[in-house]
Amino acid sequence: MDHDYELLVIGSGPAGQKAAIQAAKARRRVALVERRRHLGGVSANTGTIPSKTIREAVLYLTGLGQRGIYGQDYRLKDEIKIEDLALRTRQVVELERSVIRDQLLRNHVVLLDGTARFLDPNTVAVVDHSGAERKVTAATIVIATGSAPAHPPDVAFDGHSVLDSDDIVLRLDRIPRTLVVVGAGVIGVEFGSWFAALGTEVTVVDGRAEMLDFCDREIVEGLRYHLRDLGVIFRFGELVTRVETRGDETLTTLASGKQIAAEVVFYSAGRQGATADLDLANAGLAADERGRIAVGPTYRSAVEHIYAAGDVIGFPSLASTSAEQGRLASADACGLEAHPVGNLPFGVFSIPEIGFVGKTELELTEAAVPYEVGISYYRELARGQILGDTHGLLKLLVSPEDRRLLGVHALGANATEVVHIGQAVMGLGGTVDFLVESVFNYPTLAEAYKVAALDAANKLSAVSHFSA
Amino acid sequence: MDHDYELLVIGSGPAGQKAAIQAAKARRRVALVERRRHLGGVSANTGTIPSKTIREAVLYLTGLGQRGIYGQDYRLKDEIKIEDLALRTRQVVELERSVIRDQLLRNHVVLLDGTARFLDPNTVAVVDHSGAERKVTAATIVIATGSAPAHPPDVAFDGHSVLDSDDIVLRLDRIPRTLVVVGAGVIGVEFGSWFAALGTEVTVVDGRAEMLDFCDREIVEGLRYHLRDLGVIFRFGELVTRVETRGDETLTTLASGKQIAAEVVFYSAGRQGATADLDLANAGLAADERGRIAVGPTYRSAVEHIYAAGDVIGFPSLASTSAEQGRLASADACGLEAHPVGNLPFGVFSIPEIGFVGKTELELTEAAVPYEVGISYYRELARGQILGDTHGLLKLLVSPEDRRLLGVHALGANATEVVHIGQAVMGLGGTVDFLVESVFNYPTLAEAYKVAALDAANKLSAVSHFSA
Repeated sequence: MDHDYELLVIGSGPAGQKAAIQAAKARRRVALVERRRHLGGVSANTGTIPSKTIREAVLYLTGLGQRGIYGQDYRLKDEIKIEDLALRTRQVVELERSVIRDQLLRNHVVLLDGTARFLDPNTVAVVDHSGAERKVTAATIVIATGSAPAHPPDVAFDGHSVLDSDDIVLRLDRIPRTLVVVGAGVIGVEFGSWFAALGTEVTVVDGRAEMLDFCDREIVEGLRYHLRDLGVIFRFGELVTRVETRGDETLTTLASGKQIAAEVVFYSAGRQGATADLDLANAGLAADERGRIAVGPTYRSAVEHIYAAGDVIGFPSLASTSAEQGRLASADACGLEAHPVGNLPFGVFSIPEIGFVGKTELELTEAAVPYEVGISYYRELARGQILGDTHGLLKLLVSPEDRRLLGVHALGANATEVVHIGQAVMGLGGTVDFLVESVFNYPTLAEAYKVAALDAANKLSAVSHFSA
Repeated sequence: MDHDYELLVIGSGPAGQKAAIQAAKARRRVALVERRRHLGGVSANTGTIPSKTIREAVLYLTGLGQRGIYGQDYRLKDEIKIEDLALRTRQVVELERSVIRDQLLRNHVVLLDGTARFLDPNTVAVVDHSGAERKVTAATIVIATGSAPAHPPDVAFDGHSVLDSDDIVLRLDRIPRTLVVVGAGVIGVEFGSWFAALGTEVTVVDGRAEMLDFCDREIVEGLRYHLRDLGVIFRFGELVTRVETRGDETLTTLASGKQIAAEVVFYSAGRQGATADLDLANAGLAADERGRIAVGPTYRSAVEHIYAAGDVIGFPSLASTSAEQGRLASADACGLEAHPVGNLPFGVFSIPEIGFVGKTELELTEAAVPYEVGISYYRELARGQILGDTHGLLKLLVSPEDRRLLGVHALGANATEVVHIGQAVMGLGGTVDFLVESVFNYPTLAEAYKVAALDAANKLSAVSHFSA
């Protein structure tokens, strides 16, 4: 083989980064193509990182948890401005970009600036910003081009009043009084909850009967209850047929005939795999109607030496899981044995946030796997009281057979962090008894594990006493 | 035996509570004596719970982490008042008391109000608030009377300018401009850091050469560096010979001849085991010069059927460890097998906070146990950047032999929580490779584990390549 590279990666988001680095660590000759001016993909530039920075500013500036404690006077500013939210974002984004660049260069990954398209299954043309084209060949190729917000034709996106998820991070220039969020997926729920915390009147519309259906029902109900408390209106099972703007107002029309006027519409109903410019047919590949590439268990596409990973293959489209997919695809391409990591955690950075790992009650019930539930409410923990977290909870799903954890579900303060304790216990095969016998720092939220484990253990022993 | 109770517990702090509940769950007849009006001991009433509630208020109201991000304008109030700090405390304390009472009563523990003293090794007199005395006998007795601040004769405690650790929670009526903290133990360092965060000029004096000598040196250095940055002056190796007050000012004189004027002195050099009223001699026991009772490995005192647990036996005097000691003492008294929990975590709720579990570098070096170090600095994590935590770090100490964790040390945002992930991994025998292969939610501080594990693994493989 005298290809230019042993592995070529298209896209520098979390999946592309890890694919490139995994192969480089296996001493392969690796190149990575990025068409944006900056490395990092949606995650670093318009998605995860900037949006979570905005969220932290919202949490702090509204003092949401603490307002109940210290009184309304302690809201930091009566009039929180969008600049307050954006102030920190650029700095964090630039740091992330430089961390990514350093990591790739340190691992001797060749960086190619430009837009890639297939000429044949092993050859890619890269057109840079000056229009110059170069051809590169590679033995294996990982497509990690990510996704972009879907733009249905009946929605008048204008970057000012009708926004997609890139616009809301980069272009929103005010905190709207009223907001319609179309699409109750992770991004829609996250931004909807943040604006609700800022005092915006939020309406969330989704064609499905429920939101976040990969999360545990009880956790989602807790989140929805809390968001209603902040004034959020939910319209589930409702299709949006049209979004119009007139002057500085928008009108969203639903199939049921309802109409909703709002200052801003955030349309986050779906993302499109970024494959339109790849000339996939030249590689013998095709994307589905949402631009996604189908892959097998090792992230191999229909063409043997071409892999796809990250947002471009669809759900769950989280930075952490995309990175893992990229690593696994690349390991397979290099002929390395790579064990898919079990127990991938999920995080939804809504206010309050959700963290979970393992199975939901619904999944276990559908699979006819018995389980017992142990719950701890943060309001019953000293730490929950100190934080003023009255809605948080931790739920453990425990196997009555081997007493191991089947699922860990958290809602509330630091839920995306709290879940990792349970993840470690699950990953190492620990039982509910390990948690019952653990001693945690006092007062911390980690105590919820001990309380929930005791709850589950007590229920398990009640059942076993009956059976004995 | 026809004793009134199978187990009598003296004191209702964390050690007493768990001792009583453990025996009650083993279906023993249990009584608990408490001399204060409220259950919960120092932990719930004047120590852990109220002080950590004050800390949360300081963190929020000063916006310490965030001020660097959003500018000085975002300090919530120019003039933070002591009422702002105390506002929440009563509510949290009352909740804790009721949680403790409910738990004891639910487990059928008989509560006896009054002050206990021994009449003989199996008989205790309990004198209630009306002066009425009753005698109770018990087959086994657990002394969990806790501790009180030591009051040396040359210090003029007045509850206004010269305070002990009860006073500073209950009686301090203003945020002083200047503060001398005598004693750089956990309580001294915690309060010193909080007042420094509030803008008080703090001087910390301690006769020892170092502070927090049970913590990892590098972590303590990080904390000290940060506190100096907040203007804290340290005077180590200096003995306080006298503390005087004149009007609204105090003067602290050191053995070296230095004198420090300050608005308030917080004297937290040592606590005294609360054994003075117990008439220990009637039980055949004696306390040491600091009021402490010596115990063996199962918390049994010199008298076979009498146990002691919690602050009354001395170090570490943390709520979490005291609770565990109470449980173990009681289990031993009931003839139950109880495994002492390994890997007890430690938490210091300074700003920034410290969390650790396992061994320190110093301990391993002294024991000639080889280790490799893996470090992650929060400033290099997306989450650390988002939080504005520029001083935080996580350090893993890893065995080169079996690649297991020997110690986990954290400084910075949520360190007392973050350490529990490592605690679970240590407790379940997980290796550094488990952490290298773990996927965490992004962006979270938990990623520090992966980064630090990679750092350690790389160093280990460099050594093994050389050796091979």
